[in-house]
Parts: sequence; structure tokens; C-alpha cells
Amino acid sequence: MRKKHRAGPLFTDLYELTMGASYYAHRVFDTATFSLYIRDIRSTRNFFVAAGLEDTLNELADFHFSKEEIEYLNSTGLFADDFLSYLSELRFSGNIHAMPEGTVFFANEPIIEVTAPIIEAQLLETFLLNTIGFQSMIASKAARCLHTADGRPLLDFSLRRTHGRDAGLKVARSTFISGFAATSNVLAGKIYGIPVSGTMAHSYVSAFENEREAFFAYFDTFPDHSIFLIDTYDTLEGAKNAAAVAKEMKQRGHALVGVRLDSGDMAGLSRGVRKILDDAGLFDVQIFASSGFDEFKIEKVLSQGAKIDAFGVGTKVGVSADAPFVDVVYKMVRFKGEDKRKLSPGKITLAGAKQVFRKSDPAGRYIEDIIGLREERIDEGEPLLEKVMENGTPTRSHPTLQTLRKRFEINFSRLDKKYKSIRTTAAYPVKLSRRLKDLQKRVNSTP
Amino acid sequence: MRKKHRAGPLFTDLYELTMGASYYAHRVFDTATFSLYIRDIRSTRNFFVAAGLEDTLNELADFHFSKEEIEYLNSTGLFADDFLSYLSELRFSGNIHAMPEGTVFFANEPIIEVTAPIIEAQLLETFLLNTIGFQSMIASKAARCLHTADGRPLLDFSLRRTHGRDAGLKVARSTFISGFAATSNVLAGKIYGIPVSGTMAHSYVSAFENEREAFFAYFDTFPDHSIFLIDTYDTLEGAKNAAAVAKEMKQRGHALVGVRLDSGDMAGLSRGVRKILDDAGLFDVQIFASSGFDEFKIEKVLSQGAKIDAFGVGTKVGVSADAPFVDVVYKMVRFKGEDKRKLSPGKITLAGAKQVFRKSDPAGRYIEDIIGLREERIDEGEPLLEKVMENGTPTRSHPTLQTLRKRFEINFSRLDKKYKSIRTTAAYPVKLSRRLKDLQKRVNSTP
Repeated sequence: MRKKHRAGPLFTDLYELTMGASYYAHRVFDTATFSLYIRDIRSTRNFFVAAGLEDTLNELADFHFSKEEIEYLNSTGLFADDFLSYLSELRFSGNIHAMPEGTVFFANEPIIEVTAPIIEAQLLETFLLNTIGFQSMIASKAARCLHTADGRPLLDFSLRRTHGRDAGLKVARSTFISGFAATSNVLAGKIYGIPVSGTMAHSYVSAFENEREAFFAYFDTFPDHSIFLIDTYDTLEGAKNAAAVAKEMKQRGHALVGVRLDSGDMAGLSRGVRKILDDAGLFDVQIFASSGFDEFKIEKVLSQGAKIDAFGVGTKVGVSADAPFVDVVYKMVRFKGEDKRKLSPGKITLAGAKQVFRKSDPAGRYIEDIIGLREERIDEGEPLLEKVMENGTPTRSHPTLQTLRKRFEINFSRLDKKYKSIRTTAAYPVKLSRRLKDLQKRVNSTP
Repeated sequence: MRKKHRAGPLFTDLYELTMGASYYAHRVFDTATFSLYIRDIRSTRNFFVAAGLEDTLNELADFHFSKEEIEYLNSTGLFADDFLSYLSELRFSGNIHAMPEGTVFFANEPIIEVTAPIIEAQLLETFLLNTIGFQSMIASKAARCLHTADGRPLLDFSLRRTHGRDAGLKVARSTFISGFAATSNVLAGKIYGIPVSGTMAHSYVSAFENEREAFFAYFDTFPDHSIFLIDTYDTLEGAKNAAAVAKEMKQRGHALVGVRLDSGDMAGLSRGVRKILDDAGLFDVQIFASSGFDEFKIEKVLSQGAKIDAFGVGTKVGVSADAPFVDVVYKMVRFKGEDKRKLSPGKITLAGAKQVFRKSDPAGRYIEDIIGLREERIDEGEPLLEKVMENGTPTRSHPTLQTLRKRFEINFSRLDKKYKSIRTTAAYPVKLSRRLKDLQKRVNSTP
């Protein structure tokens, strides 16, 4: 399985390799530390949720150039034989400190720090930015939905509009970490063991003489797993047809799981449908809603008094439509034993290998984070970055998805509600330790 | 190669399989035609560019459930043994009509029509929407950039922010179809034979004592392929350093390819840099610009008189940031020999197997498209959908990427400039043939 999903070292920007070639030619093998974090430029998110580490560690543990990959590089005519020969022997030998998946974090905090010979550390840049950036972005979007849905289950229905296959898998996994209940993505079910869920499409209903016949046919196949799509012709009529079939199912000892609304005024229709179901004594039949849901639409229909029990969220979460990228960067912060920092306006980096310490109040609620030096200890500050790889070897086996979900759940419950607002910007306090500040001053004064 | 990139039949929403199971249980094997098109709801695009067909045909030609995939489905407890046994033998046996990649098309026009036994046609839905929708979206975004860049080469630098690995590959390929010159994505270079391009990162410059030393070191490794990144400290000082190194290179018989700007006021800085280069007699050294470019930023800096020779476009094109999804849908339009249509408000479909005919003026410029019946012939209307698969077998080998690029180039040159506007909505005329209109009326009057 792992082999199959290996991205491979050519999953990189060309310049990572040309810089590597030049370092090699000049015998620059010194150790560098790079820090990966999300720049707070656009303020579309008050918090983020870490995801993508498992993929990262799998890739690094198996980092190597195959013969075929070396041959391709050779065919570009850009690389000297000795460098290609060096690459063909290269394995990742560095250390990785990282926030575990499911950790709530904030802009400017290092999520991953890589310490390795500069060529190795540099070669990972594109892969790390892509892997951690995308998955954390989706996990964050999902957490916003979870908060807004206020306990109602969320289902990932995004696969048809995600940016390719990989994205579909990563969305299923990242949304599951952030508390989604299931996914429609069957491959994600197989690969990750995530519960799969689904209903029926309009084409199914249209393929039968009428709606009631379609419902009966589906019930016949899935007597205990049916959710009827009721808006193909008219939602309220559909609800009546569903109720009629459900009553017959009941007599035969089966229960309709739910009905799904996929268009129209969700608040009004859901109330109408609930009444039809309740009047038929079908109090346990749930109402699922889909069609363009994200945190904003969930908030809207709930504020309008929608009677919806679960949401199928798709496209807008699967592509993080309101913020389809994060400004995730990977910056050199230490090289040859010297701390480094970039001072371009608006793009200032923090020199030095770092740690993030989180302080909580007695009730466990998060108060503030302090970015400090890696070797610092901050009183009552819980360090968030763990050493997950040492000299190229993972320090632990992967936590289960359930463990990651649990970590997210606990983290999220400890985050004050004001930071979970989907409309209001609220800056969680992220400070620098005195020692880290002093270091920045020292580095600034170095030419 | 193909095997490795097989998405597999589990790359689907669960309901495609549960509906299939129900059709199977009820012995519904009749032929259906599904039409895939982009709904014109949001009007963010005046035109689209077709992409994703090669992946589609590769997948369909190899469509089968592996033993492992069947075992997973069995483990869900949802599927009867006879259905799983049926799936394990299933191959795609249908016909596909499709617009070739590189074709310019418009909202509501069928891009692909699938005619197959309903279970097969239904099982493809999620894969087709994902594959064709995403790649066409990116090819369309790229074409907008190409138009705005007005002849200046464009480089795909998006890999670090695309939604996963697959997305990165598809972005490189789709932007290349729409006329991009190269990609930074090395894996795309290997898999698709797209030219690869790259410069250097800030970390490289920082790794040396000073900028000039970094430039010399890079030149030393790539004497004929160097593009210096000049904004690590100060862009104009960087240009002077680059000019000094380039003059020395010249004396040694080599030429600096270019310099890259990555921050600041691109218009002003590029003019300043051009002057420094020209004053040094380095008229052939090109100015590359990157950092947040898309069609909007390209237009802006060019309107400000920027002296930029080529653009590295990244994130915003790689995720189609202003419109990160398209409303691509897959609707049943014919079943059991009867034309079908859905009449939900705002979601009306066109019944019947269709063809798109394009009319041009004597100079070759596109005048209008007419959506007609598949078997119609429209005077002077060029049919755009080709039969690319018959009874599950491809009717032709894949065109080369160069052929697809050429098709796009010709198509795009024949599209009137007003539709290429990135800010103004202009609706290209898409009409229905009389026979198709008559069919809709007949289908409407059928209950």
C-alpha cells in the first residue's frame, strides 16, 4: 500500500534539484534547519488543524531515487554524473519535529521543523508544503463546519469536485480527523478504514416508473440502510412517498434511516418534511441535507430553524472554496550552526530551531502559545512539537485515525469559542519567548 | 505507468455502487446515456477548455474490480454475493463521445456523453466529474492567463500549493495544453514530457556569504541555465550583483538566462532592473516575475508598464483561486430508449443523446454553437464530439500533448477577443437545434 502511494522524490520543483546540484558541486553538506508554518496574511482563519504528517513520514522513511527517476533526471541534461550518482544513494537522514495530526495551531507557529544536511532538507520543500499545507487547510475548514453544525453529523460528499484523486482521499481523511462522521469516498473507506455513507442519485429515481417504485426498489435491496432522495420531482410529495414506503418497511420489520433534501429552501422544506414524517409516526427517520453546504450555509439554515439531522458537505469543503490555499512556507532558520532570518517586508521569518509551548487555565482552556527556542522549557507550557523522526528513522508507529480524531476533539474543546467564529477575526495570543526575541535581535545585528 | 496511475473503480461515491446493487437486484441492465457538462450558474468564465480525456480513456480501458477491491466491498456488509460476483467480472462495454482535449467549449454544452448499460454508466459518474471537471477548470484558468500575458511565456510554479500530488500533475498537463511554456514540476516532466524550468530559492542565496557569491556558485554549476533570484536582500542591488556576475559569465563565453523578481512593486522594480541590465549591455537577460500571479495580477502589472519577459504563475492558477470549482454535472438524458429530462428549477437538463455543432465565419472565427441531436447534421456546423470509445474499446490512440496544444492554440485564435475578457461577462451564442427543441417539448409533455 505504502509503495503504491509513494509520491517519490520527483514530486518536487526543479529548483530544489538544481540548488542541490549546486550545493553538491560546491561540497556544501552542512546541516540546515527549515521551519514550515502558515503565514498570517489574509486572516481567513482564526485557527488551523494539523494534518498530513502520516503521509510525510511514510514518504521520508522511503525516500530514495529509483533508477528510472535518475534516468529521467539524466535525460534533462542539467545534472552532472557525480551528483546523479550521489542522488541514487541518497536517503533521508535528518530529524523531524512536528505537531501531531489533530493539533489545533495558529498562524506563524512552526508545524514542522526539518534538520538535515542542506541538500536533503531542501529537496523536501515542495512535498512538505503540498502535503501539510493542503491537508491542514482541509482539516481546518472541516473543523469550522463541525463547530457550526453543533453536534449534527457531517458527511464528506466532496469527491466529485476535489482536485483529483489524491485530493479526494486527503479530504476524506482530513475531514475525518476533524470529526466528520463518514465519507462517500469508497477508496478512502478502503485505504483509511473511514466509515462510508451514501444515499441515491436523481438518476436512480428517474430510472423507475415513479418515485414510490424507486423507493420500494431501493428498500428491497437495502432494507436497513436506505436513505431516500426526495427532491427529484417535488420535495414534499417526495416526503409523502418516502413516508408511505417507510410505513410499509416498518410493518416488515425494517426502518428507513432517512430522507435527503438536495435543493430548494432547506429551512422551510425540512420543517415541512419533518411534519410529514412525524405525522406518520416516523420520528426516527432522519433528515439529511446536501447541496452547496459549508460552514456558512450550515449556519444560515440552522439560524432559519431548519430541521436537519445531518449534513452532506461536498464541493465547498473539499476545495476549501472560500480560501482554497494557505500561505504555507518553508524557510531556512539555521545553517552551519548559525541562526538565520529573512527580513523582506511582510515576509519576516523567525531564526532558530523552535518549539511551541501552549498554556492552559486550570479548567484546561487554552490561554496562549509561546514560540520559544527548541531547547527552552517554559513553565506550564506544554510543548506541541514532537520528535517524530531521528536520523531518518521514525521514532514511533503512526497513531490510529481514531487517536488523531480524539486529539482533535480534545484540542478543539479546549479552544475558546470566540476563536471558532466563522465570521469574526479573533487573534489567539501567540507570543515569543524572551530568549527567542533576544535571538532575533542578535541575528538582526549580524550582517 | 498506466497501471500505477489507475484510479480504480473504488474512486467513486458509495451511492454509485449501492444504486448499482439495486439495479442488479432488480435486473435493470438497460442502456442509458449520461451527459457531462458545466452548468452556467456563476458566470465566472466566458469559455472553458476541455481537458482530462486521456486519463478518462486510460481508466475506462482498464476498468475492473481487483480481488482486493471486491474484498473491501464485501467487508462493508452492504452488498450481496451475486452482485459482487457480477462486479468482479465487469468491464466497461459502452460508447463514449467526447470533445478532444484542447477544445474551447461553453457552459451547458455536453463535453462527454456516455452510453452504456446503466450500472456501468452510473459507476463512472464520480470519476468522470472529478477528472474532466478539474482538468478543464485548470486549462480554462490557464487560457485566461495566456491571453492576458499577451505572448509572454508562462511557467507553472504551482506544485507546492496544489491540492495533492495528482492535482500537481494535472495542473502541469492542463496548463501545458493551454499554452504554458514549462513547469517546475519534475514528475510532470518525467510523466508527460513537459519541459521543466526553475530558478533558485531565497534559502540558496542565504546559504552563501553574500548574494554575489551565491550567484557565482550557481553559475558555476549551471553556466548556460542560470536564472538568478534577486530579491533576497534588495531587488535593485540584486540586479546589480546579477549584472556583475553576468558580465563575467559573458567573458567566459556564457550567458545569463534571466533574473527573477519575487516580491515588491513589480512594475517599478522591473523597469529599474531592466535599466540596470541594459546599462550593462545585458539586453538578452530576461526578467522573470513570480509571487501571486494569475490573470488579474498579470493584467495589472502590464498595465503599469512592467518590463517582464515571462511569468511564473503558481498557487492562484494551480487551485483556480477565484473559482476553485466548476458546477460540472453528469445527468441521465436517455434510458431504455426513452429520452429523459430533469425539470427541477435552475437545474433543467436537455434530454437526448447530443452533438455540438460549431459555426465559423469565412475568416474562421467562431460565430455560434448549436446543440443538436447526436444524429443530426447541421449545415456548416463542425461537430465537436467525437466517438472515442466503442463497446469499451478506444477508437484511436491518444493524441500527443503537442497535438492538444496545437488544437487549443487554433481553437483559441478563432475565439473572438471579447469572450477572452477576464472581467467582462460575454455570452458566446449557444443555441439549440429545432429538432432538439422539439424533443424537449415532447419529453416535457410525457409524464
